[in-house]
Amino acid sequence: MKEIYLDNSATTKPYDEVVEYISQISKEVYGNPSSIHLKGLEAEKQIKNAREIIARSLDVHNQEIYFTSGGTEANNLAILGFLEANPRMGKKIITTKIEHPSVLEVYKYLMNKGYKVHFLDVDYRGIVDMNDLREAVDEDTALISIIYVNNEIGTVQPVSDIVEVKNQKNRNAVVHIDAVQAYGKMKIAPGKLGIDLLSVSSHKIHGPKGVGALYVKKGLKLKPLLLGGGQEFTMRSGTENVSGICGFGMAADITNSKIDENYLRCAKIKEYFKNRLKEEFSEDILIVSPKDSSPYILNVSFANIRAEVLVHHLEMKNIFVSTGSACSSRKNIHSHVLKAIGLKPDKIDGAIRFSFSAFNTIDEMEYTIGALKEILPKIRIKRGGKR
Amino acid sequence: MKEIYLDNSATTKPYDEVVEYISQISKEVYGNPSSIHLKGLEAEKQIKNAREIIARSLDVHNQEIYFTSGGTEANNLAILGFLEANPRMGKKIITTKIEHPSVLEVYKYLMNKGYKVHFLDVDYRGIVDMNDLREAVDEDTALISIIYVNNEIGTVQPVSDIVEVKNQKNRNAVVHIDAVQAYGKMKIAPGKLGIDLLSVSSHKIHGPKGVGALYVKKGLKLKPLLLGGGQEFTMRSGTENVSGICGFGMAADITNSKIDENYLRCAKIKEYFKNRLKEEFSEDILIVSPKDSSPYILNVSFANIRAEVLVHHLEMKNIFVSTGSACSSRKNIHSHVLKAIGLKPDKIDGAIRFSFSAFNTIDEMEYTIGALKEILPKIRIKRGGKR
Repeated sequence: MKEIYLDNSATTKPYDEVVEYISQISKEVYGNPSSIHLKGLEAEKQIKNAREIIARSLDVHNQEIYFTSGGTEANNLAILGFLEANPRMGKKIITTKIEHPSVLEVYKYLMNKGYKVHFLDVDYRGIVDMNDLREAVDEDTALISIIYVNNEIGTVQPVSDIVEVKNQKNRNAVVHIDAVQAYGKMKIAPGKLGIDLLSVSSHKIHGPKGVGALYVKKGLKLKPLLLGGGQEFTMRSGTENVSGICGFGMAADITNSKIDENYLRCAKIKEYFKNRLKEEFSEDILIVSPKDSSPYILNVSFANIRAEVLVHHLEMKNIFVSTGSACSSRKNIHSHVLKAIGLKPDKIDGAIRFSFSAFNTIDEMEYTIGALKEILPKIRIKRGGKR
Repeated sequence: MKEIYLDNSATTKPYDEVVEYISQISKEVYGNPSSIHLKGLEAEKQIKNAREIIARSLDVHNQEIYFTSGGTEANNLAILGFLEANPRMGKKIITTKIEHPSVLEVYKYLMNKGYKVHFLDVDYRGIVDMNDLREAVDEDTALISIIYVNNEIGTVQPVSDIVEVKNQKNRNAVVHIDAVQAYGKMKIAPGKLGIDLLSVSSHKIHGPKGVGALYVKKGLKLKPLLLGGGQEFTMRSGTENVSGICGFGMAADITNSKIDENYLRCAKIKEYFKNRLKEEFSEDILIVSPKDSSPYILNVSFANIRAEVLVHHLEMKNIFVSTGSACSSRKNIHSHVLKAIGLKPDKIDGAIRFSFSAFNTIDEMEYTIGALKEILPKIRIKRGGKR
């Protein structure tokens, strides 16, 4: 039975040509980019090529792109690196209540180090409260860090409005955007948007795991997280993951060349699936993802269902979905994102994230509807609290 | 013309079967290990398998192995993570004058943060001065960090003697060993040696780049460098580089299963090459690597030769070697390692590192001798300072 993979926000299946390319680079371009001989230069050239692809896709300079081991390292480097290198910029950080753990956990740490962190309210759609933002930005604000596309419900923040409000209150405060769920799915030009730091990840766009990148606006100083041989223009030491970086470059190239086509395709799939869910289950579902959310994510809460149970029943039919984000799914705690948008605990309990890629088809959606029709009655929690 | 790759301390060519395995895992086990469905569990299982291989090879528990993005991250995590989690252990760090930059640069940073760093003298062989060590260890010593096999000249430190001396003066001081050039080349049992932290890297043993591991003795607390989803038992957040970790596991399995055979093979190659160099160039060379150094590394200084020039002439004959370490080779500064063992500047200028793997052959050594015979007279610096 064919796999129906609807957990693309957790990770994606790498493109076949990317996997082949990684093999080829591993076999043929195995030198250390720091070596001064030809085998080193070949490897360096490949990294330069990948850097150009990523830079071009963001409409920034090559020297503004630094490769990391992934989105988490990019987020950590952006926040910790910026604050440590710029201690006089202020002690206040502004963020939202619906960030990814790789940002939230850094704030928990920083609060113990004397930073004040303001968590912006979001409305029922997950959109940042602009009044809250306007009031929060002050002269002591060093950093504003916002997730572009939320990983659990797909809310797209109005980043350019956020930057505008910020600029009215404090031109110097630096803006970091976690674009891990946005990159390759919508066009992003951080330079034009007034963004100073932007994190992206390879494995969310059919590239290899273990690679990401951070855009750092020219002139902005960061303290590196990893110290050593001085790779990545001294921003990130450690022998470069050459084949992984090359695979990321190729995946970015393929994905970005089809960005509009893929967007429309996923929008159609999501719309179809949403309508069919409404048709079949009407009163028994709540569409959690807001209107105008990313076409790649549809969060749905099923009434009187425990999401984990539904995940496991779906996997028996070779359909793979997620409760909330992969990162928090094992911790058995209520999603902070769903809480922040005001979802009641019983609705949170039944929330499933379907996340799409251009490899999904309408047929798969129809098959999933069929599976849900079969599974839901069996696993519905009966009145009195027992199943 | 066949490549003669003698820069295996910079990086190694991945095993073909490792490259194939990485492809297979990338295609078939592409789930996010944090996902609760089967595709997540499959990925988690593969990581568990790799962790068991690494743990077994070091004779430690699975829960004592944490995967990182490489040797540099392992070294940074060991030192920074330990010191930050244990601020009351003391403010003194002891290390050597011949460490890798991924350790040295961390110390430069820590010195600015109020730590005292004592750099142990080494003798002409690169061996730590035990008297210096005995005097240096005191009650304020939190950490002793030593490179097991030096990456430029191959000196093997008497780690168990070092631990013994340390224990006589301060039982609580923690020992970190940078074993990046030792792992897979000699048997290491950190638990039995009294080592608390030990760093290893995948790409030095024919595994992929971008993966490494840190052994952390059970009960020892570290503050993670990367915060987020809580992967690696909360020690290292970020979606796991599943295929890279699996590739590392396989490379470790292959390498460690042939550890004695490879050791003898490289010892024979090194001995042969060293003798042939002496035969052909007698007065014009100085063997820099000490007796009893790692059979994988032979550092030789050529009289009246600029090492970079020799590297480039050798590469034209498809022979790849290095001046010093890959990490510092581009910086055009005198090797701190060769300075520390008392080599004069003119000898440092002519120093080349030949580093071997089990893929090298006696024929390749003979071919390299032939190439040197042809090249050296042409590039020798004439009296008066001009070539």
